[in-house]
Amino acid sequence: MRLKLIHHPICPHSRFVRLALHEYNLATDLIGERVWERREEFLMLNPAGTVPVLLVEGQSPVPGAAIIAEYLVDVLGDKSNSLALLPVEPIARIEVRRLMYWFHEKFFDEVSGLLTEERYRLFMPPDSGGGSPNHRLIREARENIGAHLAYIDLLVEEHDWLAGDRLTYADLAAAAHLSIVDHLDDLQWPEAGAAKRWFERMRSRSSFRSLKESWKGFVRR
Amino acid sequence: MRLKLIHHPICPHSRFVRLALHEYNLATDLIGERVWERREEFLMLNPAGTVPVLLVEGQSPVPGAAIIAEYLVDVLGDKSNSLALLPVEPIARIEVRRLMYWFHEKFFDEVSGLLTEERYRLFMPPDSGGGSPNHRLIREARENIGAHLAYIDLLVEEHDWLAGDRLTYADLAAAAHLSIVDHLDDLQWPEAGAAKRWFERMRSRSSFRSLKESWKGFVRR
Repeated sequence: MRLKLIHHPICPHSRFVRLALHEYNLATDLIGERVWERREEFLMLNPAGTVPVLLVEGQSPVPGAAIIAEYLVDVLGDKSNSLALLPVEPIARIEVRRLMYWFHEKFFDEVSGLLTEERYRLFMPPDSGGGSPNHRLIREARENIGAHLAYIDLLVEEHDWLAGDRLTYADLAAAAHLSIVDHLDDLQWPEAGAAKRWFERMRSRSSFRSLKESWKGFVRR
Repeated sequence: MRLKLIHHPICPHSRFVRLALHEYNLATDLIGERVWERREEFLMLNPAGTVPVLLVEGQSPVPGAAIIAEYLVDVLGDKSNSLALLPVEPIARIEVRRLMYWFHEKFFDEVSGLLTEERYRLFMPPDSGGGSPNHRLIREARENIGAHLAYIDLLVEEHDWLAGDRLTYADLAAAAHLSIVDHLDDLQWPEAGAAKRWFERMRSRSSFRSLKESWKGFVRR
């Protein structure tokens, strides 16, 4: 099946899904969407008006990073792929999902969401909230990041990957949201610790490198 | 297994989990938590500092409404219970999860979160953000609710329950968040339509009626 993903190049939730699709080796066409335009055709696909949305031919759209992550596990199962981004065991799943939400919600609210929101405003017309970025919010995002980097450090000092001994959705979520900081702002690791080495490892994966092609895929349709 | 749920009586995400546990017939002890106190013992259980958190003896804590919902499906499976709050079929799951997030995220941001936040402030000390409620935000929540009630109406005109022909997590999420409006403010249904009948049906379930015991269970430990 050929998949389509409606996304925005600097949306961290879209980036998370792109990493997951790439890790699962699922070729996907990217379709860019400027969510603030609230286009009617797009709202028909996802009434919540948010990206990412995964389109699978002949099927209802799959909206949102967490829902797409669960959907991929549901359809791929554990058998079809040696790479299980979500473990099979219920208790192991708790930690992967916990960290996935940590980045999708907490890190987004405190860091990556503030940065992307302020960047979007540069592209938005004034009547949709466009204008110059709010430097107070960008400063706030910068101040919040330290605690998260320290938390990652704590986790990867105990094991190779965020949620244990293998790569999971937790690593992809963290890397996707950090990639936004890296792209829009200045990601400064406090020191050459375990977290920095983990991020270098993530960055060298081909899934992560493919994020660079974002803008190339940003065609309106 | 005897479960414990760390919750707050007017937290809609906690109420959703209480509905789910009750529907699954899982007896649970309630433990109240005032999250704004940021107690160290509580942050050890859930570093994100949010309720609900499900405690299962001898196991790591399960934090957050969505994670608890998935966890219950993972451990109960489809076999142990004739009531499947999440369907087995991957495509049917999309709609249930989509609506579950609709209420947990969108409705919370636009309505139930604003109302609970402003109510919490009455109990919070001034240095943690306590004070009198912000009436502008409460008015905003009231203005936002109409579109959501109309959306519910649209959904239950097509089928008995929000996501189809059976009760699912979607109904529990909607009912939990609406129960907050009902409890804290004045839930006014535009007319005696399908949505209102759906809510009356939800309200008469024993799981919903058990929400009233919230405060009784609100002991510090």
